Amino acid sequence: MRTVYVIGIGAGDPEHLTLAAVTAMNRVDVFFTIDKGEAKGDLAALRTELLTRHVLGPYRVVEARDPERDRTAATGGYRAAVADWQERREAIYERMIAGELGDCGSGAFLVWGDPALYDGTLRMLDRVRERGGVDFDVVSVPGISSVQALAARHGLVLNRVGRPFTVTTGRRLADEGFPPGVDDAVVMLDAAGAFAGLPDTDLDIYWGAYVGTADEVLVRGDLQQVKAEIVRLRTEHRERKGWIMDTYLLRRRTGS
Amino acid sequence: MRTVYVIGIGAGDPEHLTLAAVTAMNRVDVFFTIDKGEAKGDLAALRTELLTRHVLGPYRVVEARDPERDRTAATGGYRAAVADWQERREAIYERMIAGELGDCGSGAFLVWGDPALYDGTLRMLDRVRERGGVDFDVVSVPGISSVQALAARHGLVLNRVGRPFTVTTGRRLADEGFPPGVDDAVVMLDAAGAFAGLPDTDLDIYWGAYVGTADEVLVRGDLQQVKAEIVRLRTEHRERKGWIMDTYLLRRRTGS
Repeated sequence: MRTVYVIGIGAGDPEHLTLAAVTAMNRVDVFFTIDKGEAKGDLAALRTELLTRHVLGPYRVVEARDPERDRTAATGGYRAAVADWQERREAIYERMIAGELGDCGSGAFLVWGDPALYDGTLRMLDRVRERGGVDFDVVSVPGISSVQALAARHGLVLNRVGRPFTVTTGRRLADEGFPPGVDDAVVMLDAAGAFAGLPDTDLDIYWGAYVGTADEVLVRGDLQQVKAEIVRLRTEHRERKGWIMDTYLLRRRTGS
Repeated sequence: MRTVYVIGIGAGDPEHLTLAAVTAMNRVDVFFTIDKGEAKGDLAALRTELLTRHVLGPYRVVEARDPERDRTAATGGYRAAVADWQERREAIYERMIAGELGDCGSGAFLVWGDPALYDGTLRMLDRVRERGGVDFDVVSVPGISSVQALAARHGLVLNRVGRPFTVTTGRRLADEGFPPGVDDAVVMLDAAGAFAGLPDTDLDIYWGAYVGTADEVLVRGDLQQVKAEIVRLRTEHRERKGWIMDTYLLRRRTGS
């Protein structure tokens, strides 16, 4: 049976890699990569560094182009745009797995962060299996997510004692405001900077970009007081590097 | 300046350790340990294995007894009981750090999972610093949490596309039911088995205990259909080992 590993490689610091990830990487014949456009240079550089440092035996790297994705769709069209993009990606994955792996071969996708957190690879591999064109086992290897890297660099605990927290997206925060039932919210995938539109005056923000890398930027403080600085930093760094990977925690000061 | 590392060592699998954790462990003079009662044998065994395998230089291990904690308190008394227990623990930490570390010494606490997720160590170290008896820097090193290990072993993504999820506790689930505003909830610290009391008939559960270890047990399915089996397994394994570390995801089937 073919095996496809989905290996979380952490949030940008090559030292985020787990021993299990190194072990898995050394079982792999073929590393599949998807050209992700602007972030490609940096992800590709990290991937090359990890493979060079940690994989002892011979391996191949097979690269495909990521399909275009409509990022301009409004909320209603968002899911449709994502679904369409995912389906085209599944077809690419299917061709790569069927074409490049022998019957007992092992392949891997190296993904930023953790495969279980706002990453589409596992879901797409499930759908590739459902298509029926190629059969394989999937092994997910957890990795340090950008949220964990952010919390560590700010010295934070994400939850307060006995309390819940919610992990959400920038788009949802923009549409629905601060999540109900919690005083702590982790926000991911916030391309538009939804934090800046929140009216709440009792929130602290713990923000970070490129956390764990040489480009790391951290800001913390009263949301209303520091949001302009974060907006400025986001624009500046996105222009400089061509892409940004940032995340943040919003914490209501009314909590204990 | 003294430095105290809080190092996440993962959820039980020694391979969960990150390269950054190994690097940090090799900078440490003294490993502080707290006797955690029934789970002690297993945590101590894992800790000893990790130190033996990965720390090259000489090091010391300093152990203290964990203060007793009132786990029988009702919701109203829960926070008071936790606060009291934390304060006694802080005094222990203060004595250990002041007494065992030289002015430029490095110490470390090795914690299950990730220091940022339902672990009290960082918070207590903040309070020790606030007490003013001893000054030190804190460095948090993220680790693979039991939630991530659970998701990986079930092949899960914790969120659905563009959707939020909440991380909560068993006690809160018992008191307030399924969290508002989400269709996916990760539950931690559920000593009493709150899942079994939920009336919801549209939930799937993805449960695991001792995930990533030789004792790993996994169950998934319709909550109402599998909850009795999980209750039985929890009782059986807790009696056998003297403790249990389990976590689960509740997923509403109405979501996409």
